[in-house]
Amino acid sequence: MLSKNKLKFLRQLALKKHRDAEGLFLAEGPKVVGDLLPHFACLLLCATTDYLAAHPHLSANEVIEITERELQQASQLKTPRQVLAVFRQPAPLPEAEHPIILRQRLCLALDGVQDPGNVGTILRIADWMGIDHVFCSPDTADAFAPKTVQATMGALARVAVHTTDLPTLIDHAGAEIPVFATTLDGDDLYADPLSTTGLIVMGNEGNGVSAEVLRRVNRRLYIPNFPSGRATSESLNVAIATALTCGEFRRRQR
Amino acid sequence: MLSKNKLKFLRQLALKKHRDAEGLFLAEGPKVVGDLLPHFACLLLCATTDYLAAHPHLSANEVIEITERELQQASQLKTPRQVLAVFRQPAPLPEAEHPIILRQRLCLALDGVQDPGNVGTILRIADWMGIDHVFCSPDTADAFAPKTVQATMGALARVAVHTTDLPTLIDHAGAEIPVFATTLDGDDLYADPLSTTGLIVMGNEGNGVSAEVLRRVNRRLYIPNFPSGRATSESLNVAIATALTCGEFRRRQR
Repeated sequence: MLSKNKLKFLRQLALKKHRDAEGLFLAEGPKVVGDLLPHFACLLLCATTDYLAAHPHLSANEVIEITERELQQASQLKTPRQVLAVFRQPAPLPEAEHPIILRQRLCLALDGVQDPGNVGTILRIADWMGIDHVFCSPDTADAFAPKTVQATMGALARVAVHTTDLPTLIDHAGAEIPVFATTLDGDDLYADPLSTTGLIVMGNEGNGVSAEVLRRVNRRLYIPNFPSGRATSESLNVAIATALTCGEFRRRQR
Repeated sequence: MLSKNKLKFLRQLALKKHRDAEGLFLAEGPKVVGDLLPHFACLLLCATTDYLAAHPHLSANEVIEITERELQQASQLKTPRQVLAVFRQPAPLPEAEHPIILRQRLCLALDGVQDPGNVGTILRIADWMGIDHVFCSPDTADAFAPKTVQATMGALARVAVHTTDLPTLIDHAGAEIPVFATTLDGDDLYADPLSTTGLIVMGNEGNGVSAEVLRRVNRRLYIPNFPSGRATSESLNVAIATALTCGEFRRRQR
């Protein structure tokens, strides 16, 4: 049974203020919870009788059997699914290590991406594409918000998210680092030589990359539409642009 | 001013039953409404004073000036934006013409895609990629649902959507038509010869392509992850998979 206090605690984790204060986050459903359980400390797992019967060995600090009705009350989803768990957020990496990571591999940066669904979908893309580190500006939607966590489909288990000031990160990494962004005046993504390391920056849904970051972008790319020059939408959804860009980087590296 | 009857009429268009009975659909915001106005008959346009001042020549049957409060009441959006319009849905193309279209160009089929946001995003991708016809199974989310329309960002002005029984469509188009789907056991997307015509089928978010359609798929593709064989998410979001697949078809045709 779920006590009133526990229910309140679970509901509060929908708010960033409480998530940050506690250093915790919420995940739901067998797929996402199952993917996260081996990677994050689980403080509390609430699940229906059916789920608990199917998963007898759960590595959680506390396991509570709950009814469908209690699940409904605690869940952030429209259609709750069997299980809901509270995990500890990973300890943030010291900022001094960010530029070191960036110099050694291909990374992604999110500069003011607003929609939690987009951020989650992008983390899922990063996971698929073997991009292990994603740097987020402080105004990007929280990677540990319930909607983001659900959209990642478990990618948080494999992709590290670092919240940081992007201009500072780029400055510390050094001027020789290629910093890519997709812009309308960029070079053809499919004709550009690209690179195997560097930073790909994706911007806000409405306004694109911020001025402070754009000033530091030294490789502008354009995702060509088809046929070239055809009247079309002015832009692609940010997660779609991320997929096409990262996909092309990785296709070249095969 | 918005009468009670008009408000009721607008709100009812959130329901498929009413949209289909009236043959109408709702669009919101300056960008989407602006893109659709030149392409669809507009029966009713409701907008704030500011919007009407900035757009003195509107080709709508009826224009009503409304307050922010009325806009809030009529809108399907969390943050309504200036304008809301009712358009006539395009007349459906006779089914006999579907296979003719399919034989002549690269088309997309959605087989049970559930989420209106995904359908809208996919239509926006089709628009960008010059895929002019999208065939939807009857159980795919309605292309004219408010959430879909908003996610298309105006792509409905350029992409024709046909609701039809997909197995029948494929059978009528003929066995020589390449029918592609992405599956876990498919051929490497980047190594496959692909083609310049044919049908790319995208399936349901949870269950993929239906058995009846999968039986008719003669070219299975796999979107490789990176590095190949790395433990990763089991799948990509359906809109992301659509973008990567269609993007690769079009990259080859450049």
